[in-house]
Amino acid sequence: MPHPIIFDTDPGVDDAQAIAIALRHPEIELLGLTTTYGNVDVETATRNALLLCQLAERTVPVAQGAAAPMVKPRHPAPAHIHGANGLGDIPLPAVSGSPEPRSAPQFIVDTVNARPGEITLVSVGPVGNLAAALQLDPQLVDKVKRVVVMGGSIREGGNVTPVAEANMFNDPHAAARVLTAGWPLTLVGLDVTHRCVLGPAHMARIAAGQGALGEVLAGSYAFYRDFYRDFLGIDGCCPHDSCALAWLLRPDLFTTAPGHLTVTTHGDAEGQTLFAPEGRAFIEPRWSRTPLVEVCLETDGPAVVEWIADTLG
Amino acid sequence: MPHPIIFDTDPGVDDAQAIAIALRHPEIELLGLTTTYGNVDVETATRNALLLCQLAERTVPVAQGAAAPMVKPRHPAPAHIHGANGLGDIPLPAVSGSPEPRSAPQFIVDTVNARPGEITLVSVGPVGNLAAALQLDPQLVDKVKRVVVMGGSIREGGNVTPVAEANMFNDPHAAARVLTAGWPLTLVGLDVTHRCVLGPAHMARIAAGQGALGEVLAGSYAFYRDFYRDFLGIDGCCPHDSCALAWLLRPDLFTTAPGHLTVTTHGDAEGQTLFAPEGRAFIEPRWSRTPLVEVCLETDGPAVVEWIADTLG
Ligand SMILES: [Ca+2]
Ligand SMILES: [Ca+2]
Repeated sequence: MPHPIIFDTDPGVDDAQAIAIALRHPEIELLGLTTTYGNVDVETATRNALLLCQLAERTVPVAQGAAAPMVKPRHPAPAHIHGANGLGDIPLPAVSGSPEPRSAPQFIVDTVNARPGEITLVSVGPVGNLAAALQLDPQLVDKVKRVVVMGGSIREGGNVTPVAEANMFNDPHAAARVLTAGWPLTLVGLDVTHRCVLGPAHMARIAAGQGALGEVLAGSYAFYRDFYRDFLGIDGCCPHDSCALAWLLRPDLFTTAPGHLTVTTHGDAEGQTLFAPEGRAFIEPRWSRTPLVEVCLETDGPAVVEWIADTLG
Repeated sequence: MPHPIIFDTDPGVDDAQAIAIALRHPEIELLGLTTTYGNVDVETATRNALLLCQLAERTVPVAQGAAAPMVKPRHPAPAHIHGANGLGDIPLPAVSGSPEPRSAPQFIVDTVNARPGEITLVSVGPVGNLAAALQLDPQLVDKVKRVVVMGGSIREGGNVTPVAEANMFNDPHAAARVLTAGWPLTLVGLDVTHRCVLGPAHMARIAAGQGALGEVLAGSYAFYRDFYRDFLGIDGCCPHDSCALAWLLRPDLFTTAPGHLTVTTHGDAEGQTLFAPEGRAFIEPRWSRTPLVEVCLETDGPAVVEWIADTLG
């Protein structure tokens, strides 16, 4: 039985690889891609989502969503990481398809309501579309099968601030709404994605296995890899967004813990995910009042990377 | 050449052990104890400081200081950890000495100004006395030799909230002032103190080596140990405050990193210490604008515990 999913994304180099997995893996039924600003502006995200489906020769609905955060001003897109075009500034073919007429939040609401209890929402960008979908239909919390969010950091520290991961930092108010909504939720954050480093040899397998799609994945990876080498001193890239799908299909590769999340929405810690493990008493109950969720704390990084390369190779 | 220090403290079981080290170690010249609320109210802290000096048969000035935080309301003292009397609720002898007429902040200002460039301030409680001393004499930042603060947590998570250590949580505004004042400062936080577990065998050596003082240290330790066993599932106690002195005298047992600290003063992350390593670029410069300090990130915990037991055994 494949997992029916909606994949919410801001492609983005690592998003592109995850989208390829969502398009290719036999255990995933990809119902649609919903797009958001984040790594790029939302129009570029939509163009890239359409392009990746086209290169994979798949017809999948692409619904465009949030162009900006719910409350805070939008931060400029990180062109030094993903390229101005979101795919490492490699030349890209023209796109023939066009997006859904419905917005991303409406697409999510309609699709989930058509198959209550069956659909998993996988979010790998700022979570504004999920927050907006909850605004349209708060009962979604009882109708999704699960929500998997790539974002946050419990003990690993942040990547855009000392404590905040980029997706959470980009829209902390949406994150606070989504992570405490009370739906079945799994957080796949930097504590596990930083354990996974996809090196050139794995990327060569993916390039060889994916034809025209593989060329774009490998070309954009080369740009992204320069960032990892120059800024972080790592030879290879953390496949953040693919880890969300790895958790969905290979949960045995991850160690999780139940607990309560709080998202800081303002001040120097904005975008931080505070995790209170279930049953652990703190000085006041306020950190343990949010609904229980599941948080990934450890993973077998090399096995996850192997799974990615096997899936796409 | 011994280190002349002022020891700022809220005794407290682990404070008591650290005070014993400050009184006994030949490489420490203990110029005075300054007291603050925290583990107990400030009057109890002062009584305990006087008592510990008396049991060690030492005459050391004890100056009483902050009775409450700078800004936020005071949280009740944690009697379930340190006992209502701060020393595990064991019966205590009467105290014959009396505190300094000067307040703790005034004592710090006067003492440092009398020996500019020589004195190290070691703080192992909420840091209100250091903040108040800076208010009286902002030039202290250029006159102390160093400030060593037991407090905070970088990657370890908190002990009173998911992200905040107790001393920082107890007075986050004072912590923000003290940790960003621009004086030479070393933070000794949970990242290292949680690596150190002092077990019953080590405590037996200390009890045997310290006479009447050892009886109080061992008796209070038994109470503190119950908390560690019942709440944390650990057989033994983390000697938090002694670690500040261990760093001062045995820095070779610690790994430190230079960087910038920001202290969150409000909201759910209040009392958190955010650490931006020197030279690491984040999405905005705001986390890297504070003066450089030194932060302990790792330690050889068993060696630190051995050093404590050797010092007092
Ligand atoms: Ca993404
Ligand atoms: Ca203390």
